[in-house]
Formats: sequence, structure tokens, C-alpha cells
Amino acid sequence: MSNPLVIAIDSSTTATKAVVIDTSGDVVSMGRAEIDLLSPQINHYEHDPRQWWDSTHQAITEAVSGLSERDRARIAAIGITHQRESFALIDADGNPIRPAILWLDSRAGEQIKEFGSDHIHELSGKPADTTPALYKLAWLKQHEPETLSGAFKLVDVHAYLSHALTGKWVSAEGSIDTLNLFDIAARTFSDELLEIAGLRPDQMVEFTRAGDVIGTLLPSLANEWGLSPEVVLVAGVGDGQAAGLGTAAIDPDLAYVNIGTSVVSGTHSKEYQFDRAYRTLIGGIPGTYVLEIVQNSGSVLYNWFRKNLGDPALEGGLDPALESEASRIAPGSDALLTLPHWNAGQSPDWDPFATGAMVGFTTGHTRAHVFRSIVEGTAMLLAENLNRVQEVTGRKLVELRATGGSARSPFIRQIFADATGLPIVMSEVDELSAHGAAMIAMAGVGAYPDVESAARAMAHLGERTEPNPQAHEKYVSWMRLHSRIYPLLAELMTDMKNAEN
Amino acid sequence: MSNPLVIAIDSSTTATKAVVIDTSGDVVSMGRAEIDLLSPQINHYEHDPRQWWDSTHQAITEAVSGLSERDRARIAAIGITHQRESFALIDADGNPIRPAILWLDSRAGEQIKEFGSDHIHELSGKPADTTPALYKLAWLKQHEPETLSGAFKLVDVHAYLSHALTGKWVSAEGSIDTLNLFDIAARTFSDELLEIAGLRPDQMVEFTRAGDVIGTLLPSLANEWGLSPEVVLVAGVGDGQAAGLGTAAIDPDLAYVNIGTSVVSGTHSKEYQFDRAYRTLIGGIPGTYVLEIVQNSGSVLYNWFRKNLGDPALEGGLDPALESEASRIAPGSDALLTLPHWNAGQSPDWDPFATGAMVGFTTGHTRAHVFRSIVEGTAMLLAENLNRVQEVTGRKLVELRATGGSARSPFIRQIFADATGLPIVMSEVDELSAHGAAMIAMAGVGAYPDVESAARAMAHLGERTEPNPQAHEKYVSWMRLHSRIYPLLAELMTDMKNAEN
Repeated sequence: MSNPLVIAIDSSTTATKAVVIDTSGDVVSMGRAEIDLLSPQINHYEHDPRQWWDSTHQAITEAVSGLSERDRARIAAIGITHQRESFALIDADGNPIRPAILWLDSRAGEQIKEFGSDHIHELSGKPADTTPALYKLAWLKQHEPETLSGAFKLVDVHAYLSHALTGKWVSAEGSIDTLNLFDIAARTFSDELLEIAGLRPDQMVEFTRAGDVIGTLLPSLANEWGLSPEVVLVAGVGDGQAAGLGTAAIDPDLAYVNIGTSVVSGTHSKEYQFDRAYRTLIGGIPGTYVLEIVQNSGSVLYNWFRKNLGDPALEGGLDPALESEASRIAPGSDALLTLPHWNAGQSPDWDPFATGAMVGFTTGHTRAHVFRSIVEGTAMLLAENLNRVQEVTGRKLVELRATGGSARSPFIRQIFADATGLPIVMSEVDELSAHGAAMIAMAGVGAYPDVESAARAMAHLGERTEPNPQAHEKYVSWMRLHSRIYPLLAELMTDMKNAEN
Repeated sequence: MSNPLVIAIDSSTTATKAVVIDTSGDVVSMGRAEIDLLSPQINHYEHDPRQWWDSTHQAITEAVSGLSERDRARIAAIGITHQRESFALIDADGNPIRPAILWLDSRAGEQIKEFGSDHIHELSGKPADTTPALYKLAWLKQHEPETLSGAFKLVDVHAYLSHALTGKWVSAEGSIDTLNLFDIAARTFSDELLEIAGLRPDQMVEFTRAGDVIGTLLPSLANEWGLSPEVVLVAGVGDGQAAGLGTAAIDPDLAYVNIGTSVVSGTHSKEYQFDRAYRTLIGGIPGTYVLEIVQNSGSVLYNWFRKNLGDPALEGGLDPALESEASRIAPGSDALLTLPHWNAGQSPDWDPFATGAMVGFTTGHTRAHVFRSIVEGTAMLLAENLNRVQEVTGRKLVELRATGGSARSPFIRQIFADATGLPIVMSEVDELSAHGAAMIAMAGVGAYPDVESAARAMAHLGERTEPNPQAHEKYVSWMRLHSRIYPLLAELMTDMKNAEN
């Protein structure tokens, strides 16, 4: 096909989106359907897996409904990206035998303490943390052993949707790996991790590499949507890796950063490497790994500040006057430093008991200082993590590709550029994870020779923010002090958490 | 005289007040005159000493102008209290040879580092700190040696006013002691400290005990003000000790607390004792010492919060809705702890490089949590200091007598009662330092047999706030964690201050 389209599915925690995209990366049409978040107990977060498919079906139906017959005929493939680390257990008929347990579910604190170790980090690439499925499976092993032993298959969102679209229980490497059951260097399930999870090898689904064709779309669906009977499903990757791919940050000297609710940043690597500054995942480019820094306090923290310590008249909304005032304060916020662990620590501290801290208050500090210090805390933490990535890989970064709501603020973007010392180039794509899945799908149907070529051709990049060298020098000094806060306070923070309970 | 009045002078950093008070402690009339605060350089704070007298003259003139001839005839004495630690250098004619250097002047950082020591703390009762004259005199010795060697006398505010009122260069023990030149156990000037200060013994003024008659009012002044020629000047005490006396917290199981700009709390003691939790001063009751806790972040911190992190519509003013919301949060502010050293550390840390810190932030914390945590930080620090006072003295406190603007807030008062576990009884006197000076003056002219009796008779006490035992128990737990913050962060804070300069 000379001018194909693909449907990229992004099934997230709140909704599934279906985006029809052409070879230049332009969006032709879109559909979207919500998913109900279930929280039957505090810290328990679940989905009905049937909604994964229902929402996908509805989103695709909406996306194709506005297309001409000619455009429908151009659709060559469906690609998938999705929320990571979430899983369902199904019976032989494909029916879920309990609700799916999601990445943000934090019921498995005890299991993380019991099984989390440096060894598992080295084996799987993933430091002990709330999000991976491994510890929640260990929780099920203890609390619902029959559910686990009676399951026909353990599936991630990708495999569940693959089956609904093609009849095959097949996931992608960079999807199933996020469950934390892989020996990541060997790119296969680890017997040791399956044992901890209480699962048998026969309960595992097949998986393939991103860009591989899983199968042909079921005729009934092709018929219902008015698509060619030759439409194929192409194996994708988890949404974080897909978003990074969407910025085409694929060369070794590029990283992407999403300054969203969390701050997530990654680089691609040919070799498997692990370190506390990041978690290692299988990438969307076959044969690669993604070294992914995760800091769970980004916009969530800026929004917290605006809502709780900003002008109440603004009701938590953006405050351009405050940003303008904060932008005139020097790096270091006149010696007020923030450890941004409001939502516990991930890279590089991986501490569920960590909390936020601000050190250096004097009466000369204003609201703008406090806000700036919080933003600087998130940016310095990223810079510290990126420094460790560069030390581990021996590669020097030259540019960050940015996305996420807070990256749109020139004030915040400049602080991230100055703290990291790297130019920041904005991605102009709204649905970046779907964009990455579309790149993979285009390579899968031969519209480009490989995923890298698709990424370079289809990425849409915009404004570039240069770091200020003097400001960067100051941040380098402040970071030496900033990085001391967590080690000094870690034990006290744990004791405070315990005192509260 | 059967029903005497006294004029109590309180010459502070901003103004001199003259309060005419009767034997029951009621105020009959008042006068007040401002003093100009001079700041010729950053961190330099000075007065023209002539304004000490001009403002006193003006305040007394105003205070007596409204009195009947009969009431003027009742005036038996003038008592003095005043800003402490400030000093002037005068020539043989009584003229100042340079501006007075004030307690809040912080030019002598280097001298504090050079001379400050545990030995000087033990000798003088005063930990190395910004406020005492000793280090500023050492600064003069280095930067203006001729001024120092050429001075006829070193005077405090008391001696300067004594001379203007009676022609005698005489101070009071509890006034001149605040310069930090005393061997406090011996109650006399220390040769060792005079050597550091660069002063000769002949440059020292005489001093006497609180309640002693210094001399008769100069006839020209008695005549000008229409007072009896027999009016005497009675030796007083520094304003902090006078305020404590004003609450009649004179028994060993009572302490006073001023929740003002700073938090200042003291108890009287017959024996000399020293500890880092307090500084030891000579008291306004002859033969006593005052163990004075000083924490330089009280209302200044609450005001900072309201101005910088409160609702801008309130322009830093009181926010009853915020206090009401904060009052419903449990002790410990849901595990958010504040080290209140916004203005450096005094009791018990004595660290000019200390700054404020908040530890334990989560996204569940609101504006009310942050405000409550700041108030709790100041109250827990006081409780920690009072605990050390009780350990050192072996005396159990049973009640706090409170004054200061922030003590009027029931919300703040309850937190102080709960953190300390002590009932708080409010003083109902506005000019409490002058009140203490009036008590001493009444004893000095025999209206009461001694200062203690005058204090018990003239104190005006009001509302009593009981501690909540459950809340206190929680604070006892939180304080074990709260008291760890400073030791963990002290070195980092110093390095941050150095990085800023």
C-alpha cells in the first residue's frame, strides 16, 4: 500500500484512545472511551478487564466512523500501547476470574519488603517499588491462592486486546516485561520470579518483538468497521516507552522527558544496564532497552502548591504573575532547597516511606521562592538522575525532547533546561504514546524499513529552549547540597511514617 | 506615702514609654515617644543615644501632663526597664562618641566565631550569639580601636538614663549583665571578658541591685514636671526579665512565656545554672537568676506565613477561618514537622547559620496543615527547651504565664498548652515590661516589703487554658522525632549559607 494509515490504540488507566495516523505522523481521526477506575478498598485499584476491550471497541468505532470509505481502505494495521504493569487473570474461555489489579494499586507493601532486593533489581532491571505486578501477584499468592493457581493465563493489557482483535493470546516484549517477571538480559520469563509470583510457566502468554505482526484482524471486526480483511495487528510496547519513541529520542545522546503528573525521562540503550537512578525496560525499538527515570512528583506537586499555598482566588489554576515573579529569582531560590518526594521516592531513592522536605527557610523567602524551589527540586532531581545515567552508560546527552502539561510553561521548561544543562525541544504531538505505537505499526507494515526510520520521519518537534550556562553552573553547585537532603532525612522520614500509623 | 504612684520607663528599640502605675497595678496615665532606628550598613543597627534620653523626657512629660496636681504629688519614684545588650560609648562630658550599637546588630559574626566558646557560656551564662555586646565590642576593638580606648565610660541604656535623671553613671545588675561582660556567678565584671572586649575596668559604670535607690531626681526635672523634690530613681532590670516579673512568675514551679515576635520564656532560680536550652541573666528579684529560653521565631514566623503563603486578599492579616481549619487537625499535622529556625537558631542550638525546615510533605497536606505545623514547630521547640530547664533545675513546672500578641489566639495558645503539657494563664497587662519595672520601684520605695510581694500584688492575670492530656501525649511522641531535625540538617544548613554568599 503506497499511502497507508494505522490505528494506534492507547489504553490507559482512565480511557482508551484510538488515533488514526498517516505516514507523516498527522492525525486523521480519533476516538475515545472511558474506563471505570474501581477502588474497593483503600490503596486497592482495579479495572474490569472487559472494559479494556469494550473501550477499545468503542474508540475504534468512533475513530473510523468519520473516515471516508477510501480512507478506511488505507488502514493497514492496528498498533497497541497501554498502561503498564497492570494485569488480569483469565480462564480458558477468556473470561476474567477477578478484577484486574493496576500499576497504581499499593496493597503489596509487605510483599515489597519481603521480596524486594538488589538481586531482583539486577535480574529484572526494576528496583523494588509499588508499581510492578510481581509484588501484587505475591500478595494474591498469599491472599487468593486459588485464584492464582486456577487461572488459565496471566495477561497484560496488550495480550488481552490482542486476543480480542485476533484471537491470539500474544503480548509484546516491552509490554509483558513491565510485570517484572522477566530475566531482562535473557528477554524471557524468569523461573525465580514466577516462583515468587506463584505462577506456572504454562500460565504465561506468548510474546513477540515490537513491530512483529501478531495476526490478522478478526473478519467479524474488519467487517463491522468497514476495514480491509488484510488489516494486521502489530505488536507494540508499554505507554512510557511508546511516548519516548514518539519524540524520536532514539539516538544515544538524546533523552525524552515527560513533565506531567510524574516526571519520566528515558534513553535508549543497546546493552542491558541497571542502576538506582532508573528502571530498565525493554524498548519499542527491537533489541533495545529503555533506561527510564521515574520521579512521581511533577505537575502533581506544582498543582498541590497552587491549590494549597497559592492564591485561593485562582482555585488552583495557573498563576502567570507568580511564575513571572519566580522567574526573576536566582537559581537556588536564595538557598531554599526542596526534596520533591511528596508521593514517596522513586529514582534514585526507591523509598515508599520518603516524603517531601524543604530546607533553608528564612523570612526573606516569598511565595514565589517557595514555588520556584519546588520546581527546582523536581528539576535538580532529574538532573541528578540524568547524571547517573550518563555515568553508567558513558554517553553524554546533548538534548532533551519534552512533553507533558508542565513542559508547556516556559518558566518550568527553562528551569529544567538550566538544571540539566541541556537544550529542551518540545514535542508538538498531543497523544504521544499513540504516536509511538503508530510509528511501530508503520514499520510493521513496511511503510518504513524499521522503527527508527518511522520515528525520525513521523516525530513532530517544535520550540527549542537553550540552557543558560551561568544558571547551569549555579545549579551544579546547588545540586551537591540538594542531593544530601534525602540521605540525611531518610531514616527520620520512615520513623515519622511509622509514628503516624 | 500611703498611696504612691511610680513612673515606669520602658525604653525599647522603637520607642520609650512612660507608664504611671499605682500600687494595685492599674495604669493611671501613659506617654510615648519614638526612637529612630539607624542602619548605616546591612546588618548594622544603631541608635543616637541622645534619643534614649530625649524620648524618655518626652514620654514622661506626656505621662504627667494629664495628671492632677494631687496625683503628681503621689509620684514617689521612677523605675527603669529597657532594651538589653545595646550600648553606647561616652566622653567625660557625657556625650556619645559614636552611635550606640544595638542588640539586633549582627556585624560581629567573625568575632562570635573567634571568641565564642563553652567556657564563655559557663563564665557569663550566655551562649555565643548575635545579641550580646561582647562580640560587637571585640569588633570595635578591631575596627575602631581609638573609639574604644578613648571612651570615658561604656554605658547601657539604664546607666545613660540614670545619668540624665540623677547625674550618676549607675546601672542595675540585671541590666549591665546583658552586655555579656560579667562573671555571672560572682556578679561582677570579668577581667577576661573585658580583655576580649578591649575595655579597661575604669571604663565600667557602677551598678546596683534591682530595687536599690540610685539617687534623687535632678531638681530641675522635678520642677519641670511638677513632681515632689523627693522623687527617687530606683534601679530596674532589662526588659525581658521585667516582663517575666510582670506576670508574677516568681515561684520555682512557674515560668512565663512571651509568644511575641520571638518566643521568650523564663523561670527564676536562686542558684546559677547554665545550659544550652537557655541563657542565664541576673533577675529583677535581688539574688535571683533568670533562666531565659529565647527562640527568635514566634509571631515573626506566623506573620511570614500569612503574608507569603496565606490568602493574598487578607494582606498578611489574621485568618480566623484558617485557624479554625488548622485547629481541627490532629497534633503532628499528619506527620508534617517544622524546625522553626527561620531567623537562625537560639535555644538550644545557638547556630547563626541555621534556617527553617519542613519535613514530611505529602499531597494530603493543606494550607492549614502547613500553618499548624509551623505553630507546632515553635511550640514543640519551647516544650523541648522547658524540658531541659526542668532537667537542669530538678524542678517541675506547673503553669505558664503568657503574654505577647500571638498568645491572644486561642488556637496558638492551645497548641502551646498541649505541646508543653502546662496550663497557660494569660497576663492582662499591655505594657508588661514597664509593669515589672513598676513592681521593682514600688518595692524600692517601701510600698511593699520586697519585689516578690509587689509582683504578687500587682500582677493582673486572666483566662486559663488547660492542656489536653491526649494531645500532650501525642506531642511527646512527635517531639522525639522533631528534635532530630536540627542535628541531621545543621551541617547542610551551614554549607547552604556559605554557598549563598
